[in-house]
Amino acid sequence: MEKDIFTNISPLDARYYKSNPKLLDALACYLSESAVIRYEARVEAAIITVMEKYGLVKKGAGKEIHDAYMHITPEEVYAEEERTRHNIRALVNVLQRHVSNELAPFIHLGATSEDITATAQVLRIRDAFFKIIIPKCIDFMDTVLDIVKREASTPQIGRTHGQHAVPITVGYIFAGYADRFGGRLKKIIESVHELRGKLSGAVGAYNAFSILLDDPRQFEEDMLSELGLRPANFSSQIVEPEFLLDLIHSVVSAFGVLAQIADDMRNLQRTEIGEMAEKFEKGQVGSSTMPHKRNPWNFEHVKSMWKEFTPRILTRYYDQISEHQRDLTNSASGRFVVEILTAFTLAVDRLLGQLQKLVIDYEGLKKNLKATDGMFLAEPLYILLAGGGVKKAHELVKEITLKAQRENKTIFDVARETEAIREVLNKESWNKLEKDPSVYTGISAKRAKIILTIWSSWSTKIRKECHGYKGVVDV
Amino acid sequence: MEKDIFTNISPLDARYYKSNPKLLDALACYLSESAVIRYEARVEAAIITVMEKYGLVKKGAGKEIHDAYMHITPEEVYAEEERTRHNIRALVNVLQRHVSNELAPFIHLGATSEDITATAQVLRIRDAFFKIIIPKCIDFMDTVLDIVKREASTPQIGRTHGQHAVPITVGYIFAGYADRFGGRLKKIIESVHELRGKLSGAVGAYNAFSILLDDPRQFEEDMLSELGLRPANFSSQIVEPEFLLDLIHSVVSAFGVLAQIADDMRNLQRTEIGEMAEKFEKGQVGSSTMPHKRNPWNFEHVKSMWKEFTPRILTRYYDQISEHQRDLTNSASGRFVVEILTAFTLAVDRLLGQLQKLVIDYEGLKKNLKATDGMFLAEPLYILLAGGGVKKAHELVKEITLKAQRENKTIFDVARETEAIREVLNKESWNKLEKDPSVYTGISAKRAKIILTIWSSWSTKIRKECHGYKGVVDV
Amino acid sequence: MEKDIFTNISPLDARYYKSNPKLLDALACYLSESAVIRYEARVEAAIITVMEKYGLVKKGAGKEIHDAYMHITPEEVYAEEERTRHNIRALVNVLQRHVSNELAPFIHLGATSEDITATAQVLRIRDAFFKIIIPKCIDFMDTVLDIVKREASTPQIGRTHGQHAVPITVGYIFAGYADRFGGRLKKIIESVHELRGKLSGAVGAYNAFSILLDDPRQFEEDMLSELGLRPANFSSQIVEPEFLLDLIHSVVSAFGVLAQIADDMRNLQRTEIGEMAEKFEKGQVGSSTMPHKRNPWNFEHVKSMWKEFTPRILTRYYDQISEHQRDLTNSASGRFVVEILTAFTLAVDRLLGQLQKLVIDYEGLKKNLKATDGMFLAEPLYILLAGGGVKKAHELVKEITLKAQRENKTIFDVARETEAIREVLNKESWNKLEKDPSVYTGISAKRAKIILTIWSSWSTKIRKECHGYKGVVDV
Amino acid sequence: MEKDIFTNISPLDARYYKSNPKLLDALACYLSESAVIRYEARVEAAIITVMEKYGLVKKGAGKEIHDAYMHITPEEVYAEEERTRHNIRALVNVLQRHVSNELAPFIHLGATSEDITATAQVLRIRDAFFKIIIPKCIDFMDTVLDIVKREASTPQIGRTHGQHAVPITVGYIFAGYADRFGGRLKKIIESVHELRGKLSGAVGAYNAFSILLDDPRQFEEDMLSELGLRPANFSSQIVEPEFLLDLIHSVVSAFGVLAQIADDMRNLQRTEIGEMAEKFEKGQVGSSTMPHKRNPWNFEHVKSMWKEFTPRILTRYYDQISEHQRDLTNSASGRFVVEILTAFTLAVDRLLGQLQKLVIDYEGLKKNLKATDGMFLAEPLYILLAGGGVKKAHELVKEITLKAQRENKTIFDVARETEAIREVLNKESWNKLEKDPSVYTGISAKRAKIILTIWSSWSTKIRKECHGYKGVVDV
Repeated sequence: MEKDIFTNISPLDARYYKSNPKLLDALACYLSESAVIRYEARVEAAIITVMEKYGLVKKGAGKEIHDAYMHITPEEVYAEEERTRHNIRALVNVLQRHVSNELAPFIHLGATSEDITATAQVLRIRDAFFKIIIPKCIDFMDTVLDIVKREASTPQIGRTHGQHAVPITVGYIFAGYADRFGGRLKKIIESVHELRGKLSGAVGAYNAFSILLDDPRQFEEDMLSELGLRPANFSSQIVEPEFLLDLIHSVVSAFGVLAQIADDMRNLQRTEIGEMAEKFEKGQVGSSTMPHKRNPWNFEHVKSMWKEFTPRILTRYYDQISEHQRDLTNSASGRFVVEILTAFTLAVDRLLGQLQKLVIDYEGLKKNLKATDGMFLAEPLYILLAGGGVKKAHELVKEITLKAQRENKTIFDVARETEAIREVLNKESWNKLEKDPSVYTGISAKRAKIILTIWSSWSTKIRKECHGYKGVVDV
Repeated sequence: MEKDIFTNISPLDARYYKSNPKLLDALACYLSESAVIRYEARVEAAIITVMEKYGLVKKGAGKEIHDAYMHITPEEVYAEEERTRHNIRALVNVLQRHVSNELAPFIHLGATSEDITATAQVLRIRDAFFKIIIPKCIDFMDTVLDIVKREASTPQIGRTHGQHAVPITVGYIFAGYADRFGGRLKKIIESVHELRGKLSGAVGAYNAFSILLDDPRQFEEDMLSELGLRPANFSSQIVEPEFLLDLIHSVVSAFGVLAQIADDMRNLQRTEIGEMAEKFEKGQVGSSTMPHKRNPWNFEHVKSMWKEFTPRILTRYYDQISEHQRDLTNSASGRFVVEILTAFTLAVDRLLGQLQKLVIDYEGLKKNLKATDGMFLAEPLYILLAGGGVKKAHELVKEITLKAQRENKTIFDVARETEAIREVLNKESWNKLEKDPSVYTGISAKRAKIILTIWSSWSTKIRKECHGYKGVVDV
Repeated sequence: MEKDIFTNISPLDARYYKSNPKLLDALACYLSESAVIRYEARVEAAIITVMEKYGLVKKGAGKEIHDAYMHITPEEVYAEEERTRHNIRALVNVLQRHVSNELAPFIHLGATSEDITATAQVLRIRDAFFKIIIPKCIDFMDTVLDIVKREASTPQIGRTHGQHAVPITVGYIFAGYADRFGGRLKKIIESVHELRGKLSGAVGAYNAFSILLDDPRQFEEDMLSELGLRPANFSSQIVEPEFLLDLIHSVVSAFGVLAQIADDMRNLQRTEIGEMAEKFEKGQVGSSTMPHKRNPWNFEHVKSMWKEFTPRILTRYYDQISEHQRDLTNSASGRFVVEILTAFTLAVDRLLGQLQKLVIDYEGLKKNLKATDGMFLAEPLYILLAGGGVKKAHELVKEITLKAQRENKTIFDVARETEAIREVLNKESWNKLEKDPSVYTGISAKRAKIILTIWSSWSTKIRKECHGYKGVVDV
Repeated sequence: MEKDIFTNISPLDARYYKSNPKLLDALACYLSESAVIRYEARVEAAIITVMEKYGLVKKGAGKEIHDAYMHITPEEVYAEEERTRHNIRALVNVLQRHVSNELAPFIHLGATSEDITATAQVLRIRDAFFKIIIPKCIDFMDTVLDIVKREASTPQIGRTHGQHAVPITVGYIFAGYADRFGGRLKKIIESVHELRGKLSGAVGAYNAFSILLDDPRQFEEDMLSELGLRPANFSSQIVEPEFLLDLIHSVVSAFGVLAQIADDMRNLQRTEIGEMAEKFEKGQVGSSTMPHKRNPWNFEHVKSMWKEFTPRILTRYYDQISEHQRDLTNSASGRFVVEILTAFTLAVDRLLGQLQKLVIDYEGLKKNLKATDGMFLAEPLYILLAGGGVKKAHELVKEITLKAQRENKTIFDVARETEAIREVLNKESWNKLEKDPSVYTGISAKRAKIILTIWSSWSTKIRKECHGYKGVVDV
């Protein structure tokens, strides 16, 4: 059923669809209502396949239903649902029309609707992750790692509380982004692998299948194995909600890392700081009234999407509760989970695009490193003094910095005027720092390279894993 | 641009569109991206109109732009945005193409983008409320009030902690729903009227317009007045976010009242309780495997939507902060506000439909009132005793109830066996209660009618107000 | 019962108690468990007082209970609760011990526990607001308004997207804070006045009192009026939750304004920006290892408290739902509302203290205004050109700014080289700007003063109102 | 510093302290401000110990500081902080007073405050978990598993949508609780083990230590290893926030399982259902006005605490972002994490206590199983029919159930009247069900026992692990 996208309500289906139609079309293969129906039909087919193995249905039934299920359209199912007011019964009725009279009664036999919807949801989500989302995240990792490699030794003033602290390197900062995002991506992958299907019937006790079979738990395991899945130890009408919750937690917390990067970047693009910037495209307009403006609007966009989607995890915590063997108050809400996944993937892609062409202003970096005339060497000065056994070294150096500010001198000037510390000033380590304060970056470069090595090989491995991934549904 | 709705991501644009296309189409006139562009063009037109009054542009300019703005299509604007990467500049460029060369430079002159987007948003939201959402809420109020009227005197056991407390009437319970929802609706209407537009430029200090005009604040007031709006005392680049936040708060808290009703209804439909139920339609299927099931799935749906949309208010609180004169991290997130409004309206409509055909099981009500053989008369018994000066009356009556439970007797039996209270038992008030415990409903019926009167007349007034409402944009 | 505060769990009762013991002690008079019991006893006393007026109890009963209630200690009530496992029954039992045998049975007669706890909560909150919180907020307003007055005409570069936009004045920015915070404070005051008490019994239908009285609603009104309160149209066992929810919404949204100010201030204290700063106290340490650091830790603290307390409003939305005439799942959670009020008041006080001694670096302000050599005059240049009928003025000026950046020239240099715009450059308005770009502040100063006037007189009025406020409980 | 607990603000430090002082005192050893200071001093001591190994300080320094650190009191540190306005500098100054002049300058040398506070927090949390929280959770598991064992074969009607579905066993339902809570507890334990310390200095690049040492990363590893900890690959000034976030996620999601149990129990205690109930203690009062009431107030309490504490996880997601190498806006908020841990532990203990003495009404269970006269056998009837090849079996059985309801007959009566299905009715499997519909519990009992076995042995293992756990701080 066609409709003008500009009449859609959700920005995901209008403005943000237009911003990235290729990605959204790819995700829709798994996350749209059309995908819901296709995957649900696939699960019904899997049951018949295993029934055939168990001799519950005639030989060839598996092939028959597989030939049929791909032809089901959402339109048909929705039309039938208007009559039944029950979406899975509608699907079953439609499927029955596409198979022989003999096979028809066995479709969905023994299953409850949730067996189908829950299992199909896991399949769809798993496919979306291994085919689209994780590869996109790996592209993102590689982009970040490229910066780590290139800028491992580029000094930058470190900032805490928004104040100049001591230097660090650009590469080390991006190594931190890689390590944090990589850690989240690991959690995402683990959580996807932990998702479970079910075929345990209306209250999770295999009541209906126990009428048909001696070992309905084994039947469930065989059916799910057909789809590359496993059951949990327990289910009520629904799969234990914690498996999906863990996944959403890992996604939302990965989104948090994107927001951190976006925030850092937009701050580094501040007029007064000017260390990094979004590339400004030819023809682009910064402001409708201030022609000189160059805004970090993509970084702002990522932060804004994070603000929109993070609170939505709460619904997942609330959906942990379902009265008794199930109430349906997690049903409509559960349908919106796909929005979080979509928004996250869009944000990964947006940030990836910006980082690939990130403008680093090396002059800006240097200017800021020099801005306080080495005042940040107060730290090593204090370390050298206290390490040499000077008492109250911290207070002494604080006095030096205060005096420098008061008298508009450098820390070096005042240090030289201070009797008590003269000895230290002659040490080689201090002289090296005085000559070029920006070398005071600790072991930033070394750690950046170690972290690069760790994640580069992991990224290669995961990319291969995604490449080899085969789903069970043709989309 | 047409697209299959089953490939949309948001359930609002696929499954829930299909569930109520008429309502969604109506809302889309105000809440979709198409509406965004139309209303923004309308605001640009209003500026020109007032410029004409001030003599800044040639006579007839207002008419010229009004003739032009309705012909702008989203497609054109989006195509232009691909070049400018700035949505309002794109709109302005497109508008300029539709007017004379002479007028073109004046379009948007002095305005910043946010002047347009913020003001257009207020217009769209106000129209959506007065044309669709509030009338729907008034229909809902009237449906609830019908039940109040019809069932003002129908006794029902009151429940606290899930335990039978003392009786009440069905009408009084629904009077509570009416009073709470009505209170929220009042807040909604007040909040819509409080929304403010702006035309104060890039940092809110009227810098650009102060180049063109002596009193740019007056110009802003005139322009907004053209649209039936006012400015706030202050703006930065953006309107103070609290006006919209208050509206969303009122909507989300109104949604909470719907969730309360839905929860109560689905509990009253429990098999063991059986006092109220959703109407079960002909052909409807309750469960795909349990043919006997009749589920309160619409009530569950409303609760579930509330679970999904309530946490989203947090983003609105986070969007209160915008660094300095504005950062853009409230932009993408701000676009999703329309989802909350849409979900709320859908829920109102869904619940309204169910309450109109609500099944009340009068036998069920009576059965439950009788279930404890009048045990709840422990309360008036205690009141009569203590009111007669008996000390430790509460403990005495608790003993009577415990004894009754222990010996499987009624409270009346045990009471009669208890010397200390014999006198009370002969009082007329007690005898009336003993004869029919269900009359112990306090002043439920009287209060129900008073509340009915209050809200009926208010509802009539608001309906008239909506009826007389004229927007400034043809949709 | 005494206990070491360093063994408390909540930071509010340990670290933040120590940070501001005077304020916390003042709030504890209304918001602690001790206050809960005192105010609940006060409500029980009010019922007896009105019973005396109605002739239900002997003459002098009101005086008797008033003499008694102030002597109740939390220790006694908690000891009794260990036996009854019911807090209000415990309170009633204790109260009964403090009055004559004749009066004892009438204490709490006809009331349900929630009549007492809900009404007492409103009294406590109202007192806390009018005696402590609102006066503190008014102090805050006045502090902000002082800055508005002092700095109404101090130019500052405006910032959007973290980029230099066009100038504004410091006073106008603070006028914005005043207007937004003042608006929230108005909502707070309205919401406090809207809070309602109740005396409608176990299910809200006045069942018990209807045994004792002809018009129990009138009795409720009389009793509440004794305490300066009103009932709502409706109650179940509980007062409609929306009254308190509106108050918490207003408080949390006021907290958002504090967070905005804190964020702006800490950004303006960035090393590279250096326009405003927290006063650095004598003896203060900025960092344990970097002696030169001066951190905006108080502003950071306010932001952090806002982050902690804002999500807690969600519990208030969830507490809107209480099954049937009430379930108790809003009880424990409801007790934590006082934490939000306390944290908010602490944040107001912290920020107030910092703003009173805020360091404004006038040199820093000037330096930043000059940083782009007047590039921000791109806006008025564009306005002048387009206002003069030049087509594509926006693109033309954008080109000028790009050229200036490319060739490291000022906007004035490039403008002068640009034939098309020479005419404009000779205008007086442009010359004035070229001479001192920082005068391009629109009508900042004028608006700042208007806003100052509005809120100054309001603030005086509210301060008087608070001063004249009398509670009904001696604390 | 002693203070009346009834003047505390947080319910955790007043009402809920009183409700469980033993547990709160135990937690305070790890989660209070007193513990903060003790553990921070312990970390400072660990640095000196490793410095001694590296020869940076004199022999015996480690012993000297260990003898000293236990004598530090919060009072001393807070007094010093009034001067320094920096908590860690205050601690260091105080520690310096307790050691020799020679050792004093080396205390905290090279470290930044966050090295101490972050590492100490991990130690405290780990101790709290292994000494108090996990053992309590294991007690809870064992209590649930006792019920699984005892009630593995006790039939209960299953409920979906609040409607009678098909039977299940009590033990299987509790097996579900055990499996879900056990799964969460596993996550909790994993997350605690994953927590990381740090000693990487002000911006995480080991700047200061690189002045003192060749391999400061190794030094960090050695120091943390002294405390049984590890560093992460990366840190800025702060440890990557995701480690703690994962732990809080696991705790909050475990809390969700408690809320599920509480909700189920309070619903099963409904007057009309009456299958399970809280034990009603001697002397207990159910309602202050309705002496007959028995309320599930402990279950309600657990649900309410969950409502209060679940939204607080959002602050943890927001605290993922810390600008650049750190801003301090996660500091105050981070202090409140202990409240979540405390509330969770209280809820575990409360629910544990209630389940230990849970009242199961076996008559109530039977009554409800019989309430629909076997109507739920519609499911196996449909399975038998469709499994036998009958087309439209689902619709046929639905008709039977509708007819039964319409004519007030049992499903057996109507089935026997229905020609098409007569054959099925003679099957042994159907006859068994007709004789006692409550045997239709699928493989509930079997699965309950399997799940029991899995978790019993795990629980034993973890209990042993906790028993063998040794912390590094004496409390």
